[in-house]
Amino acid sequence: MAAWGERLAGVRGVLLDISGVLYDCGAGGGRAIAGSVEAVARLKQSHLKVRFCTNDSQKSRGKLVGLLRRLGFDISEDEVTSPAPATCQILKERGLRPHLLIHEGVRSEFDEIDTSNPNCVVIADAAEGFSYQNMNKAFQVLMELENPVLISLGKGRYYKETSGLVLDVGAYMKALEYACGIEAEVVGKPSPEFFKAALQAIGVEAHQVAQEFEIAMSYDDASTL
Amino acid sequence: MAAWGERLAGVRGVLLDISGVLYDCGAGGGRAIAGSVEAVARLKQSHLKVRFCTNDSQKSRGKLVGLLRRLGFDISEDEVTSPAPATCQILKERGLRPHLLIHEGVRSEFDEIDTSNPNCVVIADAAEGFSYQNMNKAFQVLMELENPVLISLGKGRYYKETSGLVLDVGAYMKALEYACGIEAEVVGKPSPEFFKAALQAIGVEAHQVAQEFEIAMSYDDASTL
Repeated sequence: MAAWGERLAGVRGVLLDISGVLYDCGAGGGRAIAGSVEAVARLKQSHLKVRFCTNDSQKSRGKLVGLLRRLGFDISEDEVTSPAPATCQILKERGLRPHLLIHEGVRSEFDEIDTSNPNCVVIADAAEGFSYQNMNKAFQVLMELENPVLISLGKGRYYKETSGLVLDVGAYMKALEYACGIEAEVVGKPSPEFFKAALQAIGVEAHQVAQEFEIAMSYDDASTL
Repeated sequence: MAAWGERLAGVRGVLLDISGVLYDCGAGGGRAIAGSVEAVARLKQSHLKVRFCTNDSQKSRGKLVGLLRRLGFDISEDEVTSPAPATCQILKERGLRPHLLIHEGVRSEFDEIDTSNPNCVVIADAAEGFSYQNMNKAFQVLMELENPVLISLGKGRYYKETSGLVLDVGAYMKALEYACGIEAEVVGKPSPEFFKAALQAIGVEAHQVAQEFEIAMSYDDASTL
């Protein structure tokens, strides 16, 4: 494992994705990916700073952390960077009142946001909420605005449920972009601002952080940290 | 009306759109647009050849013509060029067996098409059929194909129902294109092949045909033909 050790030279922090890296979502909440619970524990015992950085926009941080703790992970809410709180900050800063096309599971993150008389649309992974009616409603709100603003929590193409592949928010974002002739603002990965916020939270510079997929592919190696 | 007469010099045929030009679709079948019934009658009494050329992919030609006749239009099924029959011809020529994401109203056009063990996806304006489940199913079929083929009946962004604007097939086509990383084949307007088929049906060359929107904007002028 010398090669692995060399690759970590100078590394002070690790950004870890959650869905598909720590666990696979699906029926009954999902299941931990083999070795991931132990890898996270080992990382947190090491000298490395750890931040969980997810585009999951179906769940509030509270719900997500509750699920992960039940699966055995040592994780708390304030260790998670996720797009909903980042979006709320943008909405407040710019005086935006969103029409929300989101999953019920994440709605509590927007509790303090004024949604009256909307002047933008926020779209997240609404899953079953991506009905024809709901998509038309979001579209109509955008078309009534002089300067339509569409904010998308991530732009993933698809992801894996235990039942198989399903469309992610990016596909529905593209549908609204095309219909309205606009370009969405993406909050979440791969936006640099989103990664920067995660790094700031652990006080680590970009060149000092390990990429999550290296870790994800190396659970067995975590024992050598 | 001299200007209008001059613009028709050399014109031998007219292609007329249907939805939004002859009638507005909506509850109870929709309503004829003022002046359009009379304009069609006058055109058909003139020396001009008339072809109805629609991207409507919610209804079979039989259903569409039945509706238009009830609204007072003099129109028969064999005067209509629509994307479903054109698609069936392509499917047969290329040995394609579609998974159909379409409206129930147009399904009868595909009665003679083999849909077992699908090797492509055909998407049309499915309206309420654009559910999360149905979109995922179409996506999964495409992802299982070595060479995913997506055929879209038109690529309209949206259209007007009597209840307001609604998303058209193009928006959902874009969603599947993005998720799968592919480009759809569009059958219907604005495909040149589609217009050529309409012109062939009335034996008129492209330079001898009037554009539908000129007619649509000039119902009052039709009395001068």
